[in-house]
Formats: sequence, structure tokens, C-alpha cells
Amino acid sequence: MRTHYTGLVSAEQLGQTVTLCGWVHRRRDHGGVIFIDLRDREGLAQIVCDPDRAEMFKTAESVRNEFCLKVTGLVRRRPEGTVNANLKSGEIEVLAHEVEVLNASVTPPFQLDDDNLSETTRLTHRVLDLRRPYMQNNLKLRYKVAIEVRKYLDEAGFIDVETPMLTKSTPEGARDYLVPSRVNAGQFFALPQSPQLFKQLLMVAGFDRYYQITKCFRDEDLRADRQPEFTQIDCETSFLGEQEIRDLFEEMMRHVFRKVKGVELPAKFPVMTYQDAMALYGSDKPDMRVKLQFTELTDVMKDVDFKVFSGAANSVGGRVVGLRIPGGAEMTRSEIDDYTKFVAIYGAKGLAYIKVNEVKEGAELRAGLQSPIVKNIHDAALAEIVKRTGAQAGDLIFFGADKAKVVNDAIGALRVKIGHSEFGKKNGLFQGQWEILWVIDFPMFEYDDEEQRYTAAHHPFTSPKDGHEDFLETDPGKCLAKAYDMVLNGWELGGGSVRIHREEVQSKVFRALKIDAEEARIKFGFLLDALQYGAPPHGGLAFGLDRLVTLMTGAESIRDVIAFPKTQRAQCLLTQAPSAVDEKQLKELHIRLRPSEKATEAKLA
Amino acid sequence: MRTHYTGLVSAEQLGQTVTLCGWVHRRRDHGGVIFIDLRDREGLAQIVCDPDRAEMFKTAESVRNEFCLKVTGLVRRRPEGTVNANLKSGEIEVLAHEVEVLNASVTPPFQLDDDNLSETTRLTHRVLDLRRPYMQNNLKLRYKVAIEVRKYLDEAGFIDVETPMLTKSTPEGARDYLVPSRVNAGQFFALPQSPQLFKQLLMVAGFDRYYQITKCFRDEDLRADRQPEFTQIDCETSFLGEQEIRDLFEEMMRHVFRKVKGVELPAKFPVMTYQDAMALYGSDKPDMRVKLQFTELTDVMKDVDFKVFSGAANSVGGRVVGLRIPGGAEMTRSEIDDYTKFVAIYGAKGLAYIKVNEVKEGAELRAGLQSPIVKNIHDAALAEIVKRTGAQAGDLIFFGADKAKVVNDAIGALRVKIGHSEFGKKNGLFQGQWEILWVIDFPMFEYDDEEQRYTAAHHPFTSPKDGHEDFLETDPGKCLAKAYDMVLNGWELGGGSVRIHREEVQSKVFRALKIDAEEARIKFGFLLDALQYGAPPHGGLAFGLDRLVTLMTGAESIRDVIAFPKTQRAQCLLTQAPSAVDEKQLKELHIRLRPSEKATEAKLA
Repeated sequence: MRTHYTGLVSAEQLGQTVTLCGWVHRRRDHGGVIFIDLRDREGLAQIVCDPDRAEMFKTAESVRNEFCLKVTGLVRRRPEGTVNANLKSGEIEVLAHEVEVLNASVTPPFQLDDDNLSETTRLTHRVLDLRRPYMQNNLKLRYKVAIEVRKYLDEAGFIDVETPMLTKSTPEGARDYLVPSRVNAGQFFALPQSPQLFKQLLMVAGFDRYYQITKCFRDEDLRADRQPEFTQIDCETSFLGEQEIRDLFEEMMRHVFRKVKGVELPAKFPVMTYQDAMALYGSDKPDMRVKLQFTELTDVMKDVDFKVFSGAANSVGGRVVGLRIPGGAEMTRSEIDDYTKFVAIYGAKGLAYIKVNEVKEGAELRAGLQSPIVKNIHDAALAEIVKRTGAQAGDLIFFGADKAKVVNDAIGALRVKIGHSEFGKKNGLFQGQWEILWVIDFPMFEYDDEEQRYTAAHHPFTSPKDGHEDFLETDPGKCLAKAYDMVLNGWELGGGSVRIHREEVQSKVFRALKIDAEEARIKFGFLLDALQYGAPPHGGLAFGLDRLVTLMTGAESIRDVIAFPKTQRAQCLLTQAPSAVDEKQLKELHIRLRPSEKATEAKLA
Repeated sequence: MRTHYTGLVSAEQLGQTVTLCGWVHRRRDHGGVIFIDLRDREGLAQIVCDPDRAEMFKTAESVRNEFCLKVTGLVRRRPEGTVNANLKSGEIEVLAHEVEVLNASVTPPFQLDDDNLSETTRLTHRVLDLRRPYMQNNLKLRYKVAIEVRKYLDEAGFIDVETPMLTKSTPEGARDYLVPSRVNAGQFFALPQSPQLFKQLLMVAGFDRYYQITKCFRDEDLRADRQPEFTQIDCETSFLGEQEIRDLFEEMMRHVFRKVKGVELPAKFPVMTYQDAMALYGSDKPDMRVKLQFTELTDVMKDVDFKVFSGAANSVGGRVVGLRIPGGAEMTRSEIDDYTKFVAIYGAKGLAYIKVNEVKEGAELRAGLQSPIVKNIHDAALAEIVKRTGAQAGDLIFFGADKAKVVNDAIGALRVKIGHSEFGKKNGLFQGQWEILWVIDFPMFEYDDEEQRYTAAHHPFTSPKDGHEDFLETDPGKCLAKAYDMVLNGWELGGGSVRIHREEVQSKVFRALKIDAEEARIKFGFLLDALQYGAPPHGGLAFGLDRLVTLMTGAESIRDVIAFPKTQRAQCLLTQAPSAVDEKQLKELHIRLRPSEKATEAKLA
């Protein structure tokens, strides 16, 4: 129907007659002439409708915003002074010869360039919301990322193999979405939380290098960056060690950023151990744009009078850290109060601090420090605080003292908060645009106090580090894993591990997890079987595509990079899913609603 | 770990030391030397283990079939007379210096090159089954098809947009797979039968050209070529007419066949109307390799004495056809009996035939024809049969006379059966390798005798042909659609249509389908809303990837081109899905099993 995309007409077509299709973005009447900004997915072009073509002009007069038009006309240079350098078509306009209304539009419920729409409005009218250049660009970039990932992996010999969506429920990890079976009464499929086991089976089957960009499902309560269905770039390879796998996938990320954003990521990504990440940033996904670090003070605080510090320092699993804020002495009381409220979200019961007005020597040191807590900390500890943090005059030191998890979460979040604040940016505490790194050497297990047993930190198919296999039986808590996460700007982009390829090691891990042989067989029998038939050494990685694209677009929410997302109540406002279904359907599936829900249903009907 | 893929080592590496990883395909001991055929996804290479390296030889002696090995050795020319022209590595062998067992294997339950395995065995031990070159090649070809589709569509400006897997149940069409919602008690998601409505919404949203290679779900009883989850190449475009859409996608198919198979499909696919297809082949997906056609005889048979013919010819919806089989007079009585049994499967009550021994003139004609029915057919009708079928001496004519559907199904199947038979191939009735065509001008509606209303032949969003819109209200049965199927060798590869983009036409179609305004609003309100906002003219197509790959590989079953398929009982024999789940899980989902299934469950436990 058209000769060119509307948004791509340019001075190259000067003097040519073109036919364009698109939507009326804006209509202006000016000096008896009608100007239409016509929009398609590639952008805008200005259409000029002169009254001397009466029929065409009459049509042009009838059009309103979001009418779908077909316009034929002559490409000519815009009058001087009206060139728009922001548009590809900014030098030209199209003098309309014919205007055809392909479809009219009722008045949209909002202006497409209104930037203050509520998310409810946007998701209810998602089709119009998707017409906005912001959403068009987000989804185009998402596509570009996916296709560049495919190009890279194809070049590297990976092949895309589809794994099932209707799989077996394994009540480890997150909650499954279940699908009742009609043919097999009383039984259920589960939607996959990831293709983990299938990709390992593909390695055992000799496919050598596998990838898939695929939907995964977790029925968890939704946070801002979670969706019930999300998309993974899922990869697995045989016959490579940990270093080689990481090299392969950091090159993939460099390729994607280069092709999609024109950004050159480091030729070698920094590598940090999990232990260092927790020690210095209280997080296994540190935002390295923030130039602040923890200072370990647990050992220093054991014998101070300030009970909050000494109590934490002396308790099992307690931790005390300092966070030096260069230039922080200028913070007001009210700013500090705000930060105290902020860390409370993460469970911190307070936020001690010291302002360093001057760094004096020896016994004078105390005089240069300003804080309610200084009087309860002895000289040697104060000296060690200043020495270890490297504090200078004009700095401020925040303290965290509690169970290690609370300290890490609270002071870790505070670190990021301050780094991203106006203060942080002004004082050079926030630097760099794309700060990427590997975090490695994760522990194999975490201890679950409630269940009184170890659980898998990554997943139970992760290989222990060389030399750590014996810890599986002697001291699982000490056992480190060949697991690695790729972290960008404080977000986990992806993670993976070298897998266990020997059945006897897999069995040891199950024992460490207190999964007995029978349970292991019921849940993972097919994997254990497969490992017996010459399973190759293998490992892999999965990236969260939604997160990656959210970061790359700078979108405010993961929902802004998904065409038809769910709300935090797991609903689709556009199609009204989920919804009630016929009794006949339930009967065929051999299920019924529980009484309380029947009541709800009756009320709704 | 390796320097080359095992299957790709060749004379190019002569004199080099290489490291290979792979599986022991076969081990032979010959003259004190051990020969190992090592296999990886690219193929085989011969490893030679000499006893003069004692440690290596000892390892080599320990290996068994399907052990996973790492072998380092020298590439040298095979002795004369032992070159294997079927292998890329056939000119060389690798003299082993080191052999490392990466993983041992227990004895596999079957030989990998056993071609007579039951499907149950293969699906139960799917991981080993997938190691077989047949399955490796099928899945590699599947990947190649998918990546070439992506390349073509990317070039053509299509972008991949992911649509939801958790969607709304719409009880039109096939049965939905349902997913109970935990957060929204008593409500259910449905897995998509296709992204049809979402892709139309994306067109309304201005994405212009969309594609997706995505899983779709139908909870139907399974036939040989059906799976509960299957993969569609789903495409939609705006601002193109029917012809342009077909041109775009036949070029895609040419591209895929060229790149993947090296086959050049016709520069212009033949086009046949639905009406012609049914008239000549009794099928809307005729296998054009079979050079046989129906001859319409309904009008000729109205006044013959043979009641089977005249009854069908005179009843509403009855049909009588002839199928001329050149050279068929040589068929034996027993062959004809077999065909009679065959057409009974399709509901035919018998299979009348005439052998043409000689084509005599005028009143003599009857004397040249041999058949129990000839005596009950008058001269004029016999003359017309011979004239219309063009029968020659030595031919045989089969007849179908019944309701049109029975005739079409039975004689259509007979046509294919004879074409594919030894007889057919010998007599030139089967020709060509890739016979592709478009079938167009489908009816908008089919009449459902049971429900006493029209149902959508394609789906209710299909646009009527230009000039047929009035039939929607006056005579829906006459209304043809802008719908088209691509047919290859008698299989429907894909189908699609130009969609309705005006809300008033969509409403007329719903009225013709006896879907009232309220029902339409509940089921498709979001589509009707979207159409009001300047929806563009649009249309598209969906291809069945599983079928396409089955045809291209020549696989025996659609299950042979899917890594982890379900059985005809919709079960995964490898992982034992579906399975019983915990009561706790059901409770969280607000559902319970119906009593009869609880009994089943108790029995299983």
C-alpha cells in the first residue's frame, strides 16, 4: 500500500511522489492549510494539505488524532526556519495529493504524549500505550537484543532446542504454576521454572551447545522487577571449564552492547569473589558505579562500651561495619534522619554515625570527631575506625551493627542510596555508566535455620569447586561452588554454574541437602539415570532478558519492556485474565473449586 | 578441552596433534590394536590405540560403548583400502597419545544404531535416543529452519514480540489448557491456542510487522501429527493486501528450502481455489504429487437405475464422482477388495468400479466395460462417464457416491493411497518431490448441523472477500474469505487470512455466528475496543514448525522432530509428567480433585 515508511522519508526522496501509511499524531490548521504529523513505527513526517485540492482537503478536515491514513503526495523541502533536526524527515514535508482514511478512530482516552499516565490507565489501554514512541522503542530494542544474542550464539555453534512447557512439578525452589491434565485424571503438569534439567539432558544427549530464549514461570508474590512469566536467555555447553564459559558469555554481552547500544564494555570483565562482594558491599550484586565500600569493624568493636556495637560484634553471626562517606560531614541532621528511616526498611534498628571534623593525632583524635556514640568507644577503637576507613576531615562514617544479614542488607542499600543521591553525584561517589563484573565462588549451600538443614544456594546440580568435594560430607558450609553471576549496575543479569556430571557427586550433594535416595529418585530419577551414561562435563548460564532490556533502555519498570505484562496482582488489565471458567471445563479437568472460592464466584456472577 | 569437533577432523589436520572429546560409538580390538569410533554431534572419527603406550592402552582397554572420552593424538592418513568416503574424517585416523575417561557409562539398554526400537523404549530413554545421528540431524535441521526463518523475517522488517503464555480462556475453538490462579482465587489463566488476538493488537498498536516462533497449546485428543504443545511460526503485517502477504511468505518458504535443503521451490507457487480443490481432489490440502483427479458425475447419475448412484445424486448434499486410474485395469480383484476396505475407514459403504477393456463407439461402448454395475447404468450415462474421465483402454474408474463429505474424504484418501502405492509409482501416477501450492477463497463459514448455526471456517476475525460483505447478512454460506493455506505434499504447512480491521464488519461477523453483542463484549471486548482506534488493514499467517520440519526431514513422526515430546496419552515417559501433586499445592490454588480422581490418587499412592 505504501512506498516508504513514514518515519524514513527524507531529503533522499525530494521531488518524488510517495505513498505513506500511518496514524494522525497531531493535526494543526494554520493559515487555511492543514498540517498533519503522520506517525508510523519508524517516526513522524509532516503532511501538508492545501485547500486547492478540494476533495483531499475535505477528507483532511475530517481527520482526528489516531485516524489511520494513506497519503500520496510530493516530497518537498520544508520552508526555511521550519526544519526539525530531531526527525529523520525533518528537512522535508509531503504535499498531499490524495488522503484516504483507512480507518477512523474514536477519541483516545488520553493524549499519546502525556507522560503522567498512571500504570493502570496504561495497562488497561495497552494497545494505545504501545503506540507511544517510548514503548515502541523499548520493544524494538528488546528485539534487537534478542536477535543479536541469536547471531552471536549461532556463530559460536550453539543451537536452539525447544524444551517442553508442560513439564513435571518438582516442589523444590519457587512455587509452580500447575496445569491439570484432562487425559490423566488427578494429575498435573507444571510450567517450567527454567529448562535447567532439560538443558542438562541435552548436553548428556550430545548436543554440545544449546540455547533457547524462552518463557519461564514462577508463582511467587510479585515485586517491582518480577513477573509471573519472564524470559530467559538459557545456554548450556559441554567440554568447557568455568573460565572458558565465562569468557564466552562476557564476549556475548560485549557483542550485544556494541551492536545494540554502541557501547564498548571492558575487554575483560572484573571478577570478584562472593566473599569479597559481601565483605565490601554487603551484596552479591554490587552496584560498582557507587564508589563506597564497607570497612570491617567486627573485631574492633568486641570490647567497646557501646552495647549496640559490642553486642553485635560478640554474637554468633553478628557483624559491625563502617561506611565512609567522603564529604559526608556536610549532611544535615534531617538528611541523616531520613537515612535512618531508610535503613529501618531493611531491619536496622538505628543508624549510628561519626562526623569527622578534623583528623587529630593520638589522644587528641576524639576531639575531632562529632557523634553521640563517641563517648562510649575507647581511644584504640576510634583510632582503628579512622585508620581502617581512611576517613579524612569533612567525611562522615555510618555504622551498621546487627546480624550480618541485616547489616549487609541495610548498609548495602544505604550505600546505593547515597551513591545515587544528588549528594553522591555531586561528590563523585557515583561514576561510570555501565559497571559490569562477575561475582564467583558462591557457597554451595545456605543453612536454613527453620528447616535445620542446608539448602542449595544456586541449585542442587551445581558442581563444587575443585578440592571442595570432600566438604560435601565433612562441612557443607565451607563448600564453594563453580557458580558465577554476571552483575551490571547492581542488577544480576544472569547466573550459572558448571554442573555436576558424575552421578556419585550428585548423590553426595543430595545427601548434604538431606534428600534421601528415594526422594532423589522420585524427583530427579531421570537426571540421575542420564548421568550414568557417560554424561560430559558441562555448564551454562541463564540471563534474564527482561532485566537486561530494562537496564539497556533505562525503562522505569520491567513492565515497560514487555508488550502485555501482568500487574503486581498477576492480572492482565487488557484481557481481564485470569477469569472464571465454565463448570464444564473444570469437570473435564477432574477438579472443582474449594467452597470458599465457589462463594466468591457466585458473588461475581 | 578440545581443539576440534571429532566429526570435523579431516585431512586438513594431517600431521597435527589434536584433542577431541566425544563418546565411544564402537570399540574393536584388531591385531593387538584397539580401534575406537569416537562420536560427537558433528560425526565420527577413528582413534587408534597402540599397545606401545602402556598407560594409554590400559585406559583404552577399559572403555566401553558410550563412555565419554578426551583423546589427544596425531592425525595421520588411514592405511590404503580403509578410507571411508561416507565420513568427513574418512581419510584420516588419530593415533592416540593420551586417552582420558571423562565419564564412564553403564551398558546402554539398546544399541544406538538399532533401527527397530519401539517408540516407548525410545521415549523412555530419550536422552540416549537423542544421541542417535537420526535425531541429532532432525533437531539440527529444525534449528536451521528456525534460524533461516528469523533471518528472512528480520531482513523483511519483521520484529519478534513476545506475547503472554498466561492468557484468558475463550471457549471458542479447541479446548484450553487451564492454569489456576493462586492470587485470584477461583480464577484461571489459559495457555494460548495461538497468539491470534495479541498479534492483531500489535498491528493496531502500530508495530507494522510482527513474528514469533512460539509454543501453542490445544487440549485435544491426539492424532499421529498432533502434540499438546506445538510450535508456530506466527506472523502478521499491516498495510498489505492478500496477494502481497502471500508473495512475502512464499518467498520465505523458498528462502528456507534453498538455505536448508538446497531445493529450489517454484518461482511462483500455483494457486487453487478451495472450490477447485474440493471438486478435483476432495481435499483442501491436495497432495499434488499424485496425478489423479476426481471427475464430477453427480448430474449424470440422477436417472440411472443403480440406486447407490442415483440416490446420492438426487439427495441434498449428495455427490457422485469418478476417479480414473490410468492402467488400473490390471488391478486384481484382491487389490480392489483392499481398496474397498480402505475407503470404509472414511465412511464409504462400498467402492464401485468399471474396468475399461476397450473404448468402443456408440451402442458398442458397454461391451468394452467390465463391472457388476454397468448393467444398471444406461448408455448415455456410460458414454458421459467415459467422455468426462477421458478413460482409455486399460484404465479403471473408481466411483464414490454418498454425502459429499464422505465422497471427498473416502475418494480423496483413495486417490492418495493409489498415488503412493507401488502401482501408482510404477504407472507414473506419483511425480515430483516438493509439490507446493496455495489454496485460497475458503468459505467464511461452515454450517454446524448440530448447533444449527454457522461456525467460523478459519476464525471469526477473518475478512470477507471484497464484494462478499453483504452475504454476511443475506447468505453467510455464500460468503468467501480472504483466507489462504500453504499446502505441501498434501500437508497444510500454514494458513492465514486478511483480518477484519473495521469494528462494524467484525460485529456483522459475530451476528452471522449468532454471537450476541454481550457475549462478543465479554469474550473479545478488548479486540473490539482496539478496532475503534484507527486499526490498520492487516493480515498474516501461521506455519506449523513441527510439520514443516517433519516434511523436510522425512521423519516418520512429528515426535521425531521434537526433543521431548508427549505420547498419544499426553505423557512424558522420560520425566513422568503429568504427576500427582501435594494437597498443599492444590489448596493454595483453591482447587480440589473430584472424588473419583481422589480414589485414583489413593490407589496410585
